[in-house]
Amino acid sequence: MLEITGRTRVLGILAHPTDHVKAPPGINRIARERGKDAVMVPFNVAPADLQAFVGTLRTLLSFDGAIVTVPHKQAILTLCDDLTPHARAVGAANILRREPDGRLIGGQLDGAGFIQGLRHAGIEPKGKGIYLAGAGGAASAIAFAAAEAEVAFLTLANRSQGKADELRRRLLQFNPRLAVGIGTRDPSGHDIVINGTTLGMTADDDLPVDAERLSPGMVVAEVVMVPEMTPLLEGACAKGCQIHLGHHMLDHQLRLMADFMGL
Amino acid sequence: MLEITGRTRVLGILAHPTDHVKAPPGINRIARERGKDAVMVPFNVAPADLQAFVGTLRTLLSFDGAIVTVPHKQAILTLCDDLTPHARAVGAANILRREPDGRLIGGQLDGAGFIQGLRHAGIEPKGKGIYLAGAGGAASAIAFAAAEAEVAFLTLANRSQGKADELRRRLLQFNPRLAVGIGTRDPSGHDIVINGTTLGMTADDDLPVDAERLSPGMVVAEVVMVPEMTPLLEGACAKGCQIHLGHHMLDHQLRLMADFMGL
Repeated sequence: MLEITGRTRVLGILAHPTDHVKAPPGINRIARERGKDAVMVPFNVAPADLQAFVGTLRTLLSFDGAIVTVPHKQAILTLCDDLTPHARAVGAANILRREPDGRLIGGQLDGAGFIQGLRHAGIEPKGKGIYLAGAGGAASAIAFAAAEAEVAFLTLANRSQGKADELRRRLLQFNPRLAVGIGTRDPSGHDIVINGTTLGMTADDDLPVDAERLSPGMVVAEVVMVPEMTPLLEGACAKGCQIHLGHHMLDHQLRLMADFMGL
Repeated sequence: MLEITGRTRVLGILAHPTDHVKAPPGINRIARERGKDAVMVPFNVAPADLQAFVGTLRTLLSFDGAIVTVPHKQAILTLCDDLTPHARAVGAANILRREPDGRLIGGQLDGAGFIQGLRHAGIEPKGKGIYLAGAGGAASAIAFAAAEAEVAFLTLANRSQGKADELRRRLLQFNPRLAVGIGTRDPSGHDIVINGTTLGMTADDDLPVDAERLSPGMVVAEVVMVPEMTPLLEGACAKGCQIHLGHHMLDHQLRLMADFMGL
């Protein structure tokens, strides 16, 4: 870490609590690598205090931006002066930039981070059939990024089908030409199978898809980071699929987040 | 510097601008030395925005305290929930602590830092005759700390005598038994001669005291840090006095500030 002086730019990670957040060391390493005099520190703010706190971030002249995470990703939307199309479409922001005039711009990079992670691993989603389990925050972000990545088709599968239908409706607003359907637990017929749910974090979780229907040649990708090898990925290995670990989404997103905050 | 994580406690330096502030490396070094997971970053906030910003610091749960400097030392007083007797007496705070319940306590450590710096250099003010040039912020802080240090007597000398009279009145409120008088530019008859003005920072400044009246055995102490050797100190050396450099006040104050913020 470079020495912090009065000229150092301040970045935050807005969360509550902040004990568990993983991003500061990674962002601070990127700042060092890029020779930027900036440092990320935790901003632990309770939901009831978020509006006032974010309001004063406009006036903190040494502040350039913040990662936004649980439980503030939705609440931050109405507190920004502007949003990127992805943040607006997903309905959640996970990154904030302070413009020189104090305006706060909210962005959403979960999906872009996931797609970049795939590409870095040599997996190109363009022209592919994509199966996505889930319709919550992470899944929505991946769906909108997939909608931009010129996939051949996208299948949404969620235990609550109403949420999948609603996500499909919003995806078609975002990209009316997208081939997007609603699927079952059966992922057969797809090239890339993505778990966008939290299933797999806890030992006795159900599998997010029917792993018996996985087949060699498929890529099976996770958003769950802990455990690294989820039951789904173990099942995918047993079926001869290529697997893609959950941490890639965060790893690649950190650089996108650093870019967004001007690092 | 230790790696910053989601558990790292955040300290600030409240100033406008912050480019010139010197404290963050020193405070961060003290944190390292004490094995504390805390980091000081610049909080550059304009005067018009100070009230709202300080208000939200109460809700920043990862925040433990801030150094307060130009131009906020007076304005911060009314924004604190409580003040130390020194901050109240001096009429300025230069340090802020956030209590676990969010209350903000303002303190004033300029004077204590100066006195501790003298003592560390083997110069004990107790029982001595003290000559103090100036009646502004730094001089007031030193005067109140001297009033606690059981000096034999204290002489205030200021170009505007009204300000010296006013400071004397406030010192007597603080310590009714203090022997405090108003002096001229002539420091003779004192043991410790202190420049508490900014005279000496600029090359063509007048001397704050009549250096011809300095004599061997006197200690001549500065609050001016740049240049290190002021014309007053050069005159003092020429007269065979012991000199005490301006940086000692800040050096010793940093540890007191770290203590105040719970480092």
